[in-house]
Amino acid sequence: MSTGGPGRALEPHLTFVSLGVEDLVRAVRFYRDALGLPAREVGEGMAVLDLGAARLALLPRQALAREAGIAAGPPPGPDGGFPGILHSLNVHRREEVASLLARAAAGGARVVRPAAPASWGGETGVFADPDGFLWEIAWNPRLPPA
Amino acid sequence: MSTGGPGRALEPHLTFVSLGVEDLVRAVRFYRDALGLPAREVGEGMAVLDLGAARLALLPRQALAREAGIAAGPPPGPDGGFPGILHSLNVHRREEVASLLARAAAGGARVVRPAAPASWGGETGVFADPDGFLWEIAWNPRLPPA
Repeated sequence: MSTGGPGRALEPHLTFVSLGVEDLVRAVRFYRDALGLPAREVGEGMAVLDLGAARLALLPRQALAREAGIAAGPPPGPDGGFPGILHSLNVHRREEVASLLARAAAGGARVVRPAAPASWGGETGVFADPDGFLWEIAWNPRLPPA
Repeated sequence: MSTGGPGRALEPHLTFVSLGVEDLVRAVRFYRDALGLPAREVGEGMAVLDLGAARLALLPRQALAREAGIAAGPPPGPDGGFPGILHSLNVHRREEVASLLARAAAGGARVVRPAAPASWGGETGVFADPDGFLWEIAWNPRLPPA
């Protein structure tokens, strides 16, 4: 894991693009079988495919909304509903999840899910930017940023 | 540029996450100044910031909708309008733009902008997946996939 430095500390990197889909089986057929993206993991409730340096996660729309910390349901979009897309940015140290959320809030974002330990051992939180786009900030002890 | 191989040919990689924003100045202030993402380019009509291996492009919502090949305007979202987010996947060879769009269409996607030469010398096209999420397929002779 990086020891980080002041200059490096706040340079999060994109690890996941998560799409909330209507039909997970259809989405897997599309992205894996039709498009040919390499599958990392295909489970009952989620699929993960390779997008080069980042990964594509496919989840049922309601499940992704729950993960983001908001309610799903129409109408989707930046104006209040769930746009169906969550981007995950990974940071170098656990404390940076809360500090980046605080910076986001100070800059006009709405904290949707405050920083908290994740079941898998990391730390995550979610904010909505001034346009309503959702970002998850994650620290994963097993996945140090590149 | 990679010579590619049959196995590698259809492994596009994510290069850009583009957000269509209401106010570009506000978005730049948020992502560059508040969040601290490194800025690559900040212009009148677009800003590009670093997300690690991929980049974040910020454009006025209407401009991004035009670039995607669709009309902007409410209501946004997968159900017909413009969700405000475009992901760009780069491929290894010019011909793969059209072939990946054809595979997407065969798999249930809607081709929103057919493969065509881009003003900057590459080739691009856009499809909407079965849920309406938009993907640009791009070949850039100056940016071979990793």
